[in-house]
Amino acid sequence: MKIAIIGVGLIGGSIGLAIKSEVGSRDRRKSPLEKSKVKIIGIGRNLKRLKLAKKIGAVDEITTDIKRGVKDADIVFVCLPVGLIAETVKNILPYCKKDTIITDVGSVKQPIVSEVEKFFTQSLNLSISQSPAFIGGHPIAGSEKTSVKYASKELFENAVVVLTPTNKTDKKSLDIVKKLWKKMQAKVKIMSPVRHDKILAMTSHLPHAIAFALVNLADNFEFVGNGFKDTTRIASSDPEMWADIIFNNRTNVRQAIKRIKFELEKIEKAKTKEELAKIFRKAKEKRDYYVHKR
Amino acid sequence: MKIAIIGVGLIGGSIGLAIKSEVGSRDRRKSPLEKSKVKIIGIGRNLKRLKLAKKIGAVDEITTDIKRGVKDADIVFVCLPVGLIAETVKNILPYCKKDTIITDVGSVKQPIVSEVEKFFTQSLNLSISQSPAFIGGHPIAGSEKTSVKYASKELFENAVVVLTPTNKTDKKSLDIVKKLWKKMQAKVKIMSPVRHDKILAMTSHLPHAIAFALVNLADNFEFVGNGFKDTTRIASSDPEMWADIIFNNRTNVRQAIKRIKFELEKIEKAKTKEELAKIFRKAKEKRDYYVHKR
Repeated sequence: MKIAIIGVGLIGGSIGLAIKSEVGSRDRRKSPLEKSKVKIIGIGRNLKRLKLAKKIGAVDEITTDIKRGVKDADIVFVCLPVGLIAETVKNILPYCKKDTIITDVGSVKQPIVSEVEKFFTQSLNLSISQSPAFIGGHPIAGSEKTSVKYASKELFENAVVVLTPTNKTDKKSLDIVKKLWKKMQAKVKIMSPVRHDKILAMTSHLPHAIAFALVNLADNFEFVGNGFKDTTRIASSDPEMWADIIFNNRTNVRQAIKRIKFELEKIEKAKTKEELAKIFRKAKEKRDYYVHKR
Repeated sequence: MKIAIIGVGLIGGSIGLAIKSEVGSRDRRKSPLEKSKVKIIGIGRNLKRLKLAKKIGAVDEITTDIKRGVKDADIVFVCLPVGLIAETVKNILPYCKKDTIITDVGSVKQPIVSEVEKFFTQSLNLSISQSPAFIGGHPIAGSEKTSVKYASKELFENAVVVLTPTNKTDKKSLDIVKKLWKKMQAKVKIMSPVRHDKILAMTSHLPHAIAFALVNLADNFEFVGNGFKDTTRIASSDPEMWADIIFNNRTNVRQAIKRIKFELEKIEKAKTKEELAKIFRKAKEKRDYYVHKR
């Protein structure tokens, strides 16, 4: 089995490491990797980064030639910034086998999935069974660090990976991608691209917008405590990557910003200490229950 | 020297541990603790908590009788919720020595300092030199955990402690409190109570308000990543304590909320990916420079 990873950064590199650590592991029987030796090829534009990925063992081979990289691949992981994913899928299609499964790790799903599907049906003019399959995916894992040097085979352990099939998605391919993520110790959740983007706007994209806004507003940094540091950690994330994500999910993020402004107004307008305490108690109980315990 | 700590939680307990670890340390000469043996008395209402404080070595003696506790104390640290500090200072005054120095650790300074000073001049009808001194203080340290069991002698190492004298403050007493905090390895900054409250509204109180608001807004907690977890860590803080802080600094916090809403609107209204990237780049550069490096 040949697996191609386009974009070997934190996520792409960790996929390589996680798959390789599972090859030959104890319960191989359950694995989609069982039938043959797995070869992982890392594809990118930056040779130095690719060499580092190979050195740390995230990939077996490397190439800057995307066409050659995806040739004969059974599965292609597109681990690029959100804004480049659909275009890249289009570009590699002519060079993939008919039964290649292409999947991605983008933090936004609806624009990518719909653009790819439009292209599959319109431009290729092929029935689903004759063309490579595309499975939208998003591992909810990562950090503000983006380089392959932070890649880890444990990055997806107990992380949720959302797969976003539509009625056009090939079920068998979905199942293979699902099993592959499970082998990487992830918990797979299935939902529509639209629902994914609504949820993630609130649980991920809004917190990033807030962290960036809070840092831009602040000064007197010698008086920040650990609270400020933690609250704004993700403001040290890659700004281009996050502009890409938030722009591609702008309708949902704008809605989320409207809602957080409304929540903040409740605090702004609270007239008594008890009114504030009620708001804060609700939050603490919710967080301690849902987040602390996980 | 007798030091009384009223309220032996995370902060009060850590003060006890930090002072005791400094007693007899190498450069005793520079210490205000040099002249005599230091005895620390922990004062509180909850005997179980006080016993725990003694057991971990944060205090030498304990009492639930506040009058007896502050008797003969050279320095009194009031480590209570913001809303109880001024009242407690008033209550203990008749039982303190004339040269006792009273200081506090409240996260809000202006309402406390002005109430205490009003009482000192009006009710006592004493000149400054005849009455105990009050020094407003605020160690910018702590966490969402509040119990004495998390107390640590290192809590104030390299932490900023703000002291907020006014034109009525006794300079000699200020100097003693300053030296004491320095012995606890803190970096002492001096500013007015008003300036302290304006700055902390932005660097501490607003991030807490945001974290509480974000958790109240969120659902679908199985899809939160580390970003959300870190951004909302402080929403697991003590809600009563934070209602107290934010209520006592409400004018500044309301102003800060207005300003963060405006910052968020910039993201909401951004029309292009590049506009977003510009906002996010500014934040990342600022945070990497001011926060990462510290």
